[in-house]
Amino acid sequence: MTPSKTSEGAAATVEYLEALRLEVNQRLSASLEGLRDRRSLGAIRPPARLLEAMRYSLLAGGKRLRPVLVLVACEATGGRREDAWPAALAIEYLHTYSLIHDDLPAMDDDDLRRGRPTLHRAFDEATAILAGDALLTEAFGLLARARRQPARLVIELAQAAGSCGMVGGQQLDIEAEHRPRAEIQLETIHRAKTARLFVAAAAMGGLAAGAPQRQIALLRRYGAVVGHAFQVADDLIDVVGDAAATGKGLGRDAARGKYTYVVRDGIDATRCEARRLGQRARELAEALGERAAPLVTIAERAVERVA
Amino acid sequence: MTPSKTSEGAAATVEYLEALRLEVNQRLSASLEGLRDRRSLGAIRPPARLLEAMRYSLLAGGKRLRPVLVLVACEATGGRREDAWPAALAIEYLHTYSLIHDDLPAMDDDDLRRGRPTLHRAFDEATAILAGDALLTEAFGLLARARRQPARLVIELAQAAGSCGMVGGQQLDIEAEHRPRAEIQLETIHRAKTARLFVAAAAMGGLAAGAPQRQIALLRRYGAVVGHAFQVADDLIDVVGDAAATGKGLGRDAARGKYTYVVRDGIDATRCEARRLGQRARELAEALGERAAPLVTIAERAVERVA
Repeated sequence: MTPSKTSEGAAATVEYLEALRLEVNQRLSASLEGLRDRRSLGAIRPPARLLEAMRYSLLAGGKRLRPVLVLVACEATGGRREDAWPAALAIEYLHTYSLIHDDLPAMDDDDLRRGRPTLHRAFDEATAILAGDALLTEAFGLLARARRQPARLVIELAQAAGSCGMVGGQQLDIEAEHRPRAEIQLETIHRAKTARLFVAAAAMGGLAAGAPQRQIALLRRYGAVVGHAFQVADDLIDVVGDAAATGKGLGRDAARGKYTYVVRDGIDATRCEARRLGQRARELAEALGERAAPLVTIAERAVERVA
Repeated sequence: MTPSKTSEGAAATVEYLEALRLEVNQRLSASLEGLRDRRSLGAIRPPARLLEAMRYSLLAGGKRLRPVLVLVACEATGGRREDAWPAALAIEYLHTYSLIHDDLPAMDDDDLRRGRPTLHRAFDEATAILAGDALLTEAFGLLARARRQPARLVIELAQAAGSCGMVGGQQLDIEAEHRPRAEIQLETIHRAKTARLFVAAAAMGGLAAGAPQRQIALLRRYGAVVGHAFQVADDLIDVVGDAAATGKGLGRDAARGKYTYVVRDGIDATRCEARRLGQRARELAEALGERAAPLVTIAERAVERVA
């Protein structure tokens, strides 16, 4: 019996994931202090306002799903958590940059993020663009300092975040606003924009652990399914969720006329799909054995909000 | 006597640098075709409009100074040019992203670049932000595929381009617009915004060659001086240059009230400084021996425009 199958074990896993989330916050904060490059010719100290902007967005809270996933994927395949920290921090830097740029006036034009003004509102648009650029750049700098397979980690993250992944998905998402709905391929958009980064998080955990190819392939499939589950659940929560719990306000998708899984398939079918994906992610995690209990819990939590 | 010290040798070096520039163009074009990641779960083909935007900016011409510098720095320290290509392409991807984002309305708000509409004018602002993000991301993906020391190359480029380098310098440059001129440290801004990337180009050439630390240190100093020389010469050319030769139009700095070396020190002192820097860069290149003849020529060309 795996820990997650007893209520005691499940509670311990939930506590463990919460402890990891707090440690992610601490290490993110410390990592910003480490952005010094005084040895190199031409290097300067990061300008105060730029660093403040990076900190404002990076330390705005959030579930820290992606870095926690890196860490537990590493441990699930027998690695030491310590070896996964560069990848964990890098993926959160990268995720944060993507939120900053997505919020810009030329993109989604959002004024609020996690209950606070978005970065370009709190600072200014130029600083927001540059803080995003800096976080993206520093993500790769952090990642290349990993002890094990740094080059493969960089390739993995670049593929997940670039034109075949997150940025490509964001481009398709923006273009979809001007397309007939029958032509919009929601799965393709979300696979690239959201799920691909979960695939990278899980795979980077395995790479940091030095896991065999077979296990990394399993982690990838888990990442793809759990990432999709989060997206489907998010679409649903925007319609049927609890505003206090999401911290975002509800009905935002409908207000901006966004085409979502709920619009396409209806509430009931979308809820079924979320459950199916959560169950599938659970099974994939269980195939990794007892050490993967936190991956099982993450799969459950992805969809428990819409149960 | 090094090749550059005879007129025949100098002509051959100029021809060689031009051949490299053309090969950079060809390889940049081919590299965009290579942006496919169909093996990974969740990967998509790059959206057509995004790829078109990346191509529009990446293949807009230009002197290709930074990639050529990577290549000849590699050869100057005994490396094979083939080993330097990933770094050469990566630094041009990165430079191109920085131009795209600098031109945005929230930044320098430029309508023209190299005689053509800037990317956000030719396409739209969202696509320009995303094409810049994609080029920055793919730069690290390319770099991590280098045969030799990929992780060190990634660290070098991330430091040069991030908050302690180019992005930090751009932030200082924007903030300088609202500061009293007496408080503006032009050297600090340009060291970070321009010269640091030349330091990285030269150092990456040495790293790709597997050059000893002492030679890489020499290349760094060369990069810092030659990068500074280009910036000082650019400031001067904007005032005294030949509009047809620059392809940019003149007096742009003055028209926007920009604080430059010429404004601070006057035309004559700025010209003296450019010459001094060109001479210093020449000396540093000569210290690397005969194979560094192209570096000598680059130093000469940096300032010949203001001679």
